[in-house]
Amino acid sequence: MLTLYQFNNSVCSQKVRIALCEKGLEWETREVNLFKSEQYDPDYLALNPKGVVPTLVHDGRPVIESTLICEYLDDAFPDPGLVPRDAHAKARMRLWSKAVDEGLHDGVTVLSFSAMFRERMRAMPAAERERRYKNVGDPVRSDRHKSAYEQGIEAPHAFRAIAAYEKAFKNAEDGLAAGGPWLAGEGFSLADINLMPYAARLENLTLLDVWIDGRPRTRDWWDRAKARPSFEAALNGPLSEEELAEMSGSGAKIRQRVSEIRADYLAQFPAA
Amino acid sequence: MLTLYQFNNSVCSQKVRIALCEKGLEWETREVNLFKSEQYDPDYLALNPKGVVPTLVHDGRPVIESTLICEYLDDAFPDPGLVPRDAHAKARMRLWSKAVDEGLHDGVTVLSFSAMFRERMRAMPAAERERRYKNVGDPVRSDRHKSAYEQGIEAPHAFRAIAAYEKAFKNAEDGLAAGGPWLAGEGFSLADINLMPYAARLENLTLLDVWIDGRPRTRDWWDRAKARPSFEAALNGPLSEEELAEMSGSGAKIRQRVSEIRADYLAQFPAA
Repeated sequence: MLTLYQFNNSVCSQKVRIALCEKGLEWETREVNLFKSEQYDPDYLALNPKGVVPTLVHDGRPVIESTLICEYLDDAFPDPGLVPRDAHAKARMRLWSKAVDEGLHDGVTVLSFSAMFRERMRAMPAAERERRYKNVGDPVRSDRHKSAYEQGIEAPHAFRAIAAYEKAFKNAEDGLAAGGPWLAGEGFSLADINLMPYAARLENLTLLDVWIDGRPRTRDWWDRAKARPSFEAALNGPLSEEELAEMSGSGAKIRQRVSEIRADYLAQFPAA
Repeated sequence: MLTLYQFNNSVCSQKVRIALCEKGLEWETREVNLFKSEQYDPDYLALNPKGVVPTLVHDGRPVIESTLICEYLDDAFPDPGLVPRDAHAKARMRLWSKAVDEGLHDGVTVLSFSAMFRERMRAMPAAERERRYKNVGDPVRSDRHKSAYEQGIEAPHAFRAIAAYEKAFKNAEDGLAAGGPWLAGEGFSLADINLMPYAARLENLTLLDVWIDGRPRTRDWWDRAKARPSFEAALNGPLSEEELAEMSGSGAKIRQRVSEIRADYLAQFPAA
């Protein structure tokens, strides 16, 4: 039996849901409300010591970290395969797990907090906000949350987030030009699953065009990804009208600054 | 044929060398001198667009990112296996690739720069130092390098580095208690290979005791890892007396502050 501890509008939870849908698996959902700090409940920390979502429990044993849960699902349920067989293609696929770990995940958090979660943080009692900052002892997450709350899109973390997206979408376009139509080559794979929730969040925040205008192969890739049944089933389908409206409304307010900061980044790092 | 583009005293290069030695493979070495900015030569950037070492070229095709090169080697040369077969153990093993990407690598860079590479940076012409900061458009690396150069161990990045090591060695001790004697369980695996160069660098900087004192299982793990022939062949063997002396001499100067900052971290994040 599969149980997914998740938060509905969390990119990492969405990633695992896509993999589950692509595999045609059934699972039970346990919602962990991040805005009620349920991720720090001792029972949940026993499953997931970092206090993040998602956690997959398979026949009583927990597996953590969304990119690793997806690899685990491919090992435990090999059909249909979501990992290419060729060793080179596999390495190419895993560059997209690294991209998530090295900037895209922090990036989406910073942009989402700057746009909308900031308002939700304002509505929290101060003690709960402090608890969120403290998390489970990770000063990087702590600094990022504080700066997104206090400075929003003007935080240095936002500059880094925008740089990370610029690099990722440049790599996507270059990679697709070298060999597509999917990010690891001929077959749909965990590489695509890794990027999809980040692209979807940007699109829901009305920010995706900042990066895919002028990148026709990436736009085609995205249209193809959105046409898969797993997109509707795992990504936008489970979101409510209110959640979609909150994202588009709040994202539109920072879009102009996001474009300007991207231009600043390209001017400061012209070699990129 | 296998060619490894590497820098002798780079932790990521060491990681791949351990995997090559454990597999009993032969390879050709091409040295990329990071202190002469050779990683930004256009010919090298064509192989490795991030401008980092190492790159493995196998039969003419490059593979990048040390943790992925190690997975690639296990796919391409399966015997002896360095990846457990069980899906749970594999996920546990890959937590150690994530740990490297999410803090240990940045951490070792910050501590090494604070201790010794700072002096080498001072000896560089200013224009070359600027080129190093610019790298290939990654503001996170840029900020980290600048702050390590300017503030050394007092930089906020150093606090984060020390926090990352604290969490990693806590996880190592807890994980070994739950099931050892290796980091992914019964067999030596890429998990051990991922952590070994970081532990070795800390030991060479005389800083390892800060984290393994009071963690007997981790100390046993480290003694067992050092007894493997790959340790001498890939890690400390290739280092010169001068390199070893530079590390121990410069590391000893920051050891006291590292201990104090670790105590600050534990006081600020008591739940950790």
